[in-house]
Amino acid sequence: MAEQWPTQLAEYQNRINRLLSEQVQSLADLAPRLKSAMEYALLIGGKRARPGLLYATGEMLNVPLKDLDASAMALECIHAYSLVHDDLPCMDDDDLRRGQPTCHRAFDEATAVLAGDALQTLAFELLASYPMAPKLENRRIALVRLLSRASGYGGMCGGQAMDLAATNQAVSLEQLERLHTHKTGALLKAALQMACCLSAATEAEKIQLDSYANAIGLAFQVHDDILDVTSDTQTLGKRQGSDQLLHKSTYPALLGLEQARALTDKLYHQALQALEPLPYNTGFLRSFAGYIINRNH
Amino acid sequence: MAEQWPTQLAEYQNRINRLLSEQVQSLADLAPRLKSAMEYALLIGGKRARPGLLYATGEMLNVPLKDLDASAMALECIHAYSLVHDDLPCMDDDDLRRGQPTCHRAFDEATAVLAGDALQTLAFELLASYPMAPKLENRRIALVRLLSRASGYGGMCGGQAMDLAATNQAVSLEQLERLHTHKTGALLKAALQMACCLSAATEAEKIQLDSYANAIGLAFQVHDDILDVTSDTQTLGKRQGSDQLLHKSTYPALLGLEQARALTDKLYHQALQALEPLPYNTGFLRSFAGYIINRNH
Repeated sequence: MAEQWPTQLAEYQNRINRLLSEQVQSLADLAPRLKSAMEYALLIGGKRARPGLLYATGEMLNVPLKDLDASAMALECIHAYSLVHDDLPCMDDDDLRRGQPTCHRAFDEATAVLAGDALQTLAFELLASYPMAPKLENRRIALVRLLSRASGYGGMCGGQAMDLAATNQAVSLEQLERLHTHKTGALLKAALQMACCLSAATEAEKIQLDSYANAIGLAFQVHDDILDVTSDTQTLGKRQGSDQLLHKSTYPALLGLEQARALTDKLYHQALQALEPLPYNTGFLRSFAGYIINRNH
Repeated sequence: MAEQWPTQLAEYQNRINRLLSEQVQSLADLAPRLKSAMEYALLIGGKRARPGLLYATGEMLNVPLKDLDASAMALECIHAYSLVHDDLPCMDDDDLRRGQPTCHRAFDEATAVLAGDALQTLAFELLASYPMAPKLENRRIALVRLLSRASGYGGMCGGQAMDLAATNQAVSLEQLERLHTHKTGALLKAALQMACCLSAATEAEKIQLDSYANAIGLAFQVHDDILDVTSDTQTLGKRQGSDQLLHKSTYPALLGLEQARALTDKLYHQALQALEPLPYNTGFLRSFAGYIINRNH
């Protein structure tokens, strides 16, 4: 499996990149600058973790890739919009994202606000309209429900607000976990839940996959915090040390670097344990858990 | 009918205000500042034109009010989010909205960006989750489709981008109409289309209601432009003369005030004409068309 994993991820990445590119190309030319900014935000690169997780989970559960495309694009549209808005001067004020100028630097602030807005709308439009097998038509609204809950006030957006509120504040480990469960965890979890929603997965299996998602979601963030301390700007593709600069609470700051690394290890094993009872080939998801705590950007 | 009209509109306004208030109160307290900003943006006032149109059209087509509530709230969430983002310093940089400080003035820019984001998500969450009669469950995804198309790149967001692009530019009458058809018209039209979607309206009736929507959508904007020239800041609840200040093309600027007024009259009569063949009590919609071109704010 270890050898198969990077090829499989690369296939998913190529697929989602191609689809997103087609999608944005198909937009009418009524507002060219906005269209360019949406394209820039969607195609500037990125790990495509959410679509990758969705595709892998869906394939594991015997959902054809083409029936996962709408959800994969919708997830990435939401993720891309959140990055564009989080990078704005009034938020994290970042100049670099994925090694390139952030959207408001490449265009302008107003266009970046609108591009984020339109990408969020596009996510829901895709869930409502992008082709899907006739027998799955009746799942569309459940996908909208999952994605809206994961990305709105009760999920990602709320997490970002908690992050703003925590800046320059002393934050407990519990608060930090709650923040990240919302800010990052909710959308990663939605990737698995949306795949389940399109499959015949049982409730028991969904619970196991939720546990897996919880573990890797948090591991993802703890490792991000570690990278912000230990890596460099070029490798990260964004400003190294920005957490400290923005006085954000991080796991290394609260736990020390060694304990933070021990935590990612613990979460990694929790993730693997959650997969154990599943009667499927969980190779990709196991590799993904490993990737999350070993990646260098 | 003329006497019944303001009572009926006031009932719709009270209903939507109560529902939106309940909705925002029911949000968990995880991010109190964001929650307050969302409440502020939703409940600062406003004409509630979109929910009013939806309720009236729905009732005319025999849809119970309670089955229209999700759509009414979703429309107003989208409208409220667009105002919050349009008022940002990087966009129109407005300090006043509905006679009160704009969201980013009452809170801060970052919170205003997030409040807009979360209000957009809430719109789709409501369409996916808010109670509706069992027999209408299968219409939810069509509502998501209508609202996302009307509010995204191909609708309101694209219109706002066209507006930005047109600032400080010479714009033709045709371009100005295209801009407003997207920026304002699309969401007003969606109000009628969403009501139709929940009803047994025929295709022929939908076409008439689309024509009505096109006419009042444009009339709404032409009259807005006229008010910006002829009214005062206190009556408007927003800065008078802001179009000129921002070097925006307007109908009075392109046509002269008299011709602009003649245009609203023409559109008013087009709207009434579109209603004529309908076998319903169109009293409210007729009054609404009159209200649009006679309101003073």
